[in-house]
Amino acid sequence: MTDSSAPLPGLFIAFEGGDGAGKSTQAALLTQALSDAGRTVVRTREPGGTPVGEKLRSLVLEHGQGEIDAKTEALIFAAARAAHAVQVISPAIARGEIVISDRYADSSIAYQGAGRGLGTEAILQLNDWATSGLWPDLTVLLDVTPADGRERRTAGDAAEDRMESEPDDFHATIRTAFLALAAAHPERYLVLPARDAIAELAQAIEQQVHTLLAAPGNGTERSSTPQGVGSA
Amino acid sequence: MTDSSAPLPGLFIAFEGGDGAGKSTQAALLTQALSDAGRTVVRTREPGGTPVGEKLRSLVLEHGQGEIDAKTEALIFAAARAAHAVQVISPAIARGEIVISDRYADSSIAYQGAGRGLGTEAILQLNDWATSGLWPDLTVLLDVTPADGRERRTAGDAAEDRMESEPDDFHATIRTAFLALAAAHPERYLVLPARDAIAELAQAIEQQVHTLLAAPGNGTERSSTPQGVGSA
Repeated sequence: MTDSSAPLPGLFIAFEGGDGAGKSTQAALLTQALSDAGRTVVRTREPGGTPVGEKLRSLVLEHGQGEIDAKTEALIFAAARAAHAVQVISPAIARGEIVISDRYADSSIAYQGAGRGLGTEAILQLNDWATSGLWPDLTVLLDVTPADGRERRTAGDAAEDRMESEPDDFHATIRTAFLALAAAHPERYLVLPARDAIAELAQAIEQQVHTLLAAPGNGTERSSTPQGVGSA
Repeated sequence: MTDSSAPLPGLFIAFEGGDGAGKSTQAALLTQALSDAGRTVVRTREPGGTPVGEKLRSLVLEHGQGEIDAKTEALIFAAARAAHAVQVISPAIARGEIVISDRYADSSIAYQGAGRGLGTEAILQLNDWATSGLWPDLTVLLDVTPADGRERRTAGDAAEDRMESEPDDFHATIRTAFLALAAAHPERYLVLPARDAIAELAQAIEQQVHTLLAAPGNGTERSSTPQGVGSA
């Protein structure tokens, strides 16, 4: 699988979906599978992934940090993402590694653009500037209903954070926004029902990644991703 | 001087200039003068002015918070400013108070737009969005040379923060950017040489504020505050 004579192409994969969709589980399984196949994988998350990003994460997700209005929230997420893109993701791709991120810019488009009502186009532009136009090669959307998401979140011990504790209609808006993003970007989206069995989901995701890695020019032409991938 | 039967018009005054220009001193003197004249003054600063803003201030100004690239820095300042505008400045203006802020959006245009090379237009647009188009009625620029600014800063006990500790050519770029902003917006800028005597500067600033308060429609272009009231 590895070829020491030629640099491997980098690849950027983001997992998206509502809270409780199972993104972390699938990101971990994919990381393991690619690692077992001999690839260097950078497993990261948003907001966070850098020292300044993790501090911004606490500020925006923890309760009791003071009033945070919608635009402030969107700008804090964008600040953390800017650091993540330039300090972690871009250098890893350039080194030929595979970056797997739990959430990326589409989360802001869904949560702040649609959920907080700031407008999806304004948040897209903000994040396109923040990341200097860095978008994933593959975005895996684990589509979860608000009721299922709540059930999965509350099954764990962890208290809900500022976003998770929003009411079901907020999470319904998020879901609709993610599905709209997937419909608008079929070339990079793989949409899977979060209710499917964990092993089944993992297999579908791995299959898609292998297709992407096998495609000519995979991951190396960020601006011209091959057509036809991402059709579930 | 105050008229309890009619609301006074709010006014938003920002002090700008390089580090060590004497902004805090003049802001304090103006606050005292207006307060003595019976006006309610909200004295604030950037970044900061809100609980979340003060936390962002520490993150972006203190050394040792981890690598902070230019876009992350610009977005953190914008996030703090968004909270400041919507939570503090706008409500105070609506209550008919006078807001005096040590720095505002033009600092970002000068420091991040020009100083960090992100482009003044991009940073203007970012901050116009962040503040929902809230700009000062009066911006007092205390014009300081890099050498004077350094001398004034190092005369105190406080260690220099992340911005202050930049080299002189960075501060020269900031100065040029501020003067360009003043030239582009003469209707709201008062430019004074920071080397002038403190009492002389204070008198010039007070004079300008009184002229503004006495002008028909002062501070009212923003919305529909009553005309002509509040002339000191």
